[in-house]
Amino acid sequence: MDLRQTAAKMREIIPVKYCGAVIVAAGSATRMGGIDKVMAPLGGEPMVARTIRAFQESPVISEIVVVTRQDLIPRMEELCREFPKVIQVVSGGADRAASVEAGIGALSKKVKLIAIQDGARPLVSQPLIDRTVRAAHSFGAAVPGIPVKDTIKSENKGFVGETIPRQQLRAIQTPQVFDEALIRGALKKANREKLPITDDSSAVELLGMSVKMVEGEEKNIKITTPLDLEIARVFMEAEV
Amino acid sequence: MDLRQTAAKMREIIPVKYCGAVIVAAGSATRMGGIDKVMAPLGGEPMVARTIRAFQESPVISEIVVVTRQDLIPRMEELCREFPKVIQVVSGGADRAASVEAGIGALSKKVKLIAIQDGARPLVSQPLIDRTVRAAHSFGAAVPGIPVKDTIKSENKGFVGETIPRQQLRAIQTPQVFDEALIRGALKKANREKLPITDDSSAVELLGMSVKMVEGEEKNIKITTPLDLEIARVFMEAEV
Repeated sequence: MDLRQTAAKMREIIPVKYCGAVIVAAGSATRMGGIDKVMAPLGGEPMVARTIRAFQESPVISEIVVVTRQDLIPRMEELCREFPKVIQVVSGGADRAASVEAGIGALSKKVKLIAIQDGARPLVSQPLIDRTVRAAHSFGAAVPGIPVKDTIKSENKGFVGETIPRQQLRAIQTPQVFDEALIRGALKKANREKLPITDDSSAVELLGMSVKMVEGEEKNIKITTPLDLEIARVFMEAEV
Repeated sequence: MDLRQTAAKMREIIPVKYCGAVIVAAGSATRMGGIDKVMAPLGGEPMVARTIRAFQESPVISEIVVVTRQDLIPRMEELCREFPKVIQVVSGGADRAASVEAGIGALSKKVKLIAIQDGARPLVSQPLIDRTVRAAHSFGAAVPGIPVKDTIKSENKGFVGETIPRQQLRAIQTPQVFDEALIRGALKKANREKLPITDDSSAVELLGMSVKMVEGEEKNIKITTPLDLEIARVFMEAEV
């Protein structure tokens, strides 16, 4: 075993800090034809159950808080009986940032790392959760990203602004994992100053802190439309 | 009818300049499990046949050149008997830019506009071809783009570089349509000076010319992997 292999092996053995997961499943029915998105069936169960199970089964995740809409709480609690790591189901806020803060607020005092996960990304894999949590353990903050396949251009008043060099671009996914004090502080500042954040990581970036980029997975899509649900089924069948 | 409606109506009635299409179906089997990508079956026919048919049936397209790999020429010629607008099947070059140049070189002298289309985008629609050609008729160059749903960040040595404001970003598709002299000149310059172009439009942008952005379509995906082919089938079924 050379030095690099030894280092990799040691990293695997080293236990990670106590990591809590916040699964944001606030769900709205607007684009899903009347069904609550996170409750849409995928592989014989509500998609959010699949998402929660991934975190239940992950050895690097110690506890889970699920954030959902007020009226979905009873159904979500029912569904979470299957998942002993879920310590609480809480009601979300007015927007995503507020929902994330509500979820973080319900985690236990033992938590040192916080993994924030879209409830609508049910195809998240064990290796992906593992490497993102481990990277956050080492670097304080980590997000998964995948290369962007399309040519990306900016639009400016109906015309092409510029073609953005694609090589360095990454489409960002979840879980996004952070040191707990770091993300609490970053979100508080972002909410207080109404900073324009598009994901949780950008709140951390706005503090000037560096965020590790790990490899995401193509199948780890966010399901927003009925078509996305069909595409998720294609990915699931391809796995068998 | 108000002025804007009248203008829109007039635009519909005005015939567009004589437009030739170059369909780039050079195809490689590397990611498609042994089958030539453009020949992979979709809805009971090779996917490239579906692409060519869209241009055959478009009232704003007058002639078509198909660019393919040398050894696929007989099969492609056979397949193109069904499409009377195809005036020639030519062999591609060493890279995409060379293939596009070969295709452009085979168009007739009557051509005033050139539409360049990925052979592997078989779900291109009539309205999309129509509006892109009409925009190029008016502005000299036009490309379709769709909003980017993901959060996009740049990667820098394993860390997040920056979060790129998503609002203005567009994922670019084909057909890309240009004034014939403009695209010939732009590609010649790009090839001669080995400029880093990621799509045909960027060669035009590098000349400092403006390119109109029109609305693309989510289903107009580029098929690269067997999974993409499955996703294309999902989009096709959703249309019925």
